[in-house]
Amino acid sequence: MSQLEELLGRIEPADPEWEAKAWARLHDQIRPRDALGELERGAARLAAMKRSLSLDLSRKIIFVMAGDHGVAADGVSAYPQEVTAQMVFSFTRGWASINVLARHAGAAVRVVDCGIVSEIPREWDVIRRKIGCGTASIARGPAMSRREAEEGLLLGAGLAEDAVRKEGFQLIGTGDMGIGNTTPSAAIACAFGGHSPAGLTGRGTGIDDAGHARKVAVIETALKVNRPDPKDPVDVLAKVGGYEIAALAGAVLGAAAAKTPVICDGLIATAGALVACRLSPASAGYLFLSHESTEPGHLAMCEMIGLRPLLNLHMRLGEGTGTALAMNIVDASAKLLVECKTFAEAGVTDTGH
Amino acid sequence: MSQLEELLGRIEPADPEWEAKAWARLHDQIRPRDALGELERGAARLAAMKRSLSLDLSRKIIFVMAGDHGVAADGVSAYPQEVTAQMVFSFTRGWASINVLARHAGAAVRVVDCGIVSEIPREWDVIRRKIGCGTASIARGPAMSRREAEEGLLLGAGLAEDAVRKEGFQLIGTGDMGIGNTTPSAAIACAFGGHSPAGLTGRGTGIDDAGHARKVAVIETALKVNRPDPKDPVDVLAKVGGYEIAALAGAVLGAAAAKTPVICDGLIATAGALVACRLSPASAGYLFLSHESTEPGHLAMCEMIGLRPLLNLHMRLGEGTGTALAMNIVDASAKLLVECKTFAEAGVTDTGH
Repeated sequence: MSQLEELLGRIEPADPEWEAKAWARLHDQIRPRDALGELERGAARLAAMKRSLSLDLSRKIIFVMAGDHGVAADGVSAYPQEVTAQMVFSFTRGWASINVLARHAGAAVRVVDCGIVSEIPREWDVIRRKIGCGTASIARGPAMSRREAEEGLLLGAGLAEDAVRKEGFQLIGTGDMGIGNTTPSAAIACAFGGHSPAGLTGRGTGIDDAGHARKVAVIETALKVNRPDPKDPVDVLAKVGGYEIAALAGAVLGAAAAKTPVICDGLIATAGALVACRLSPASAGYLFLSHESTEPGHLAMCEMIGLRPLLNLHMRLGEGTGTALAMNIVDASAKLLVECKTFAEAGVTDTGH
Repeated sequence: MSQLEELLGRIEPADPEWEAKAWARLHDQIRPRDALGELERGAARLAAMKRSLSLDLSRKIIFVMAGDHGVAADGVSAYPQEVTAQMVFSFTRGWASINVLARHAGAAVRVVDCGIVSEIPREWDVIRRKIGCGTASIARGPAMSRREAEEGLLLGAGLAEDAVRKEGFQLIGTGDMGIGNTTPSAAIACAFGGHSPAGLTGRGTGIDDAGHARKVAVIETALKVNRPDPKDPVDVLAKVGGYEIAALAGAVLGAAAAKTPVICDGLIATAGALVACRLSPASAGYLFLSHESTEPGHLAMCEMIGLRPLLNLHMRLGEGTGTALAMNIVDASAKLLVECKTFAEAGVTDTGH
């Protein structure tokens, strides 16, 4: 049995009995039935993940998986590849949007070099797990080997599981950094959904019309050259994915194996989450989708996963920024289940509505 | 000049020059232009309200305005009127959904008796400003006198202004409690929008089909009997509103007069906010809509106000629960503007996209 098969074999579905116990308490709490909508649904799902009604999500962590993409040389991004490492430096200094929002959410941020093209200086506070120095261009062949894709999955899974089991984190979040990575993400959406690239390709960091046409053509070529097999998620990941996307998928699998909720960010992190859910449908039981990205491929992937994003704030940054904002909502769900009194406890007239 | 006219005269529009200054900084920060959508728009609006880029919203307060409604006797609610006071007791003990979510948001909660039908015991921690012992039924005549409506507006405005000027609160929120109050709120939506009650009347706390038909008929009767004048917001408020709705409107006006952001909750609080915006269009410049309620009249009022709710979590509870959740988003906007570095500060390549 491969290490990946061993990991997938350890993922148990979330427990519907605990979900039912949570609903019983939620319906007893002093408010009309289902009046807090998604907040209550989140609470019931958390109970099913944790096998408990005594939820505590105070220890939060966001993994920002970083990697570079050979396809960036094909003119699919508004930014040069050097920006991946520059932004990683900003993350380590606490200067970027994700740092602001993670501090606000009370979440730790860990930056992981999954495959940045350049060497990361020794003194930067980065987890050094480079699988390669950037992927090959998906427009000319596979992004990486199958072995590298599995390595990326195990990297993300190991980080998430260790965060839970060795450090006691209770809520895992994912985010990405990688110039050019909306291109492989849209390709993954097309590969799994059978969609045409024209409908699912967005403007990423802000390319113009000519750039957009180039990006659509690149994704069409990538699918034609590689013929990724939607029934084989590792094949899709290796051929049209990326190092950080593999790690993003792995983090979902690792959190699920550790029976711990995991929130994924927008387009790129959701591409990773989709790979995870195709490898292990049970892992979707531990997943929250943070926000609906303005990138057109994103909603298609949310639908394939079968979950509704919690937020829609017209965001498209990545870095884990949607994850950080959604952590507050998921944490609120947990506290609602634990702290709100029941009709009997509070002496409020219950009409059962 | 009446006290109300004096209050309205003191409300100055949010400052577009500060909004432009905020956008200049937001566009210089290390991310593609507009990539954080509503979060950036919120930051720019906050700068316009506060006339500053040094935003600090750490001191937050939610006013839960409570009142009873004569129309509750007409079978429009799934809960008996006694529940208003029972829930108010729960609010004072920290037991209810709003308490859980306000603690989570780091916000103080103040419960205001604007017109509960019963006497509130001395020992309860409630702000006692009863305008009357419940309104009269809007199905038989005006809910209250014009003088009472003005009293309610000044009550809410005074509380909000004092919270800012005397206690240093930096972010105001509103919430409601009042059995039967989705009925006057839907009536207000119809009165201002010229809509027919059938389209804008929801199920409130959970009435059945017969109850819903009764509620629609009651609102139709209320509009026929009272003929509220949409060009005279105080007339609408007095005839088909409620004591707590008047105070909810007043809180928006008071916050606006104090140049302070105010977040309103769902259907009932938004009915109050709509009255405020009709009395003072400039007050909308200080307003955030927290969430889109599942109540059908709500979105119509959001559109009349001209703002988009920040969240859509299929909630319909009231109490200020949507406000508490949205406080986290608005606070995140403020921190983003203040804390995220610019391209020049961080040494990241800026391509202007």
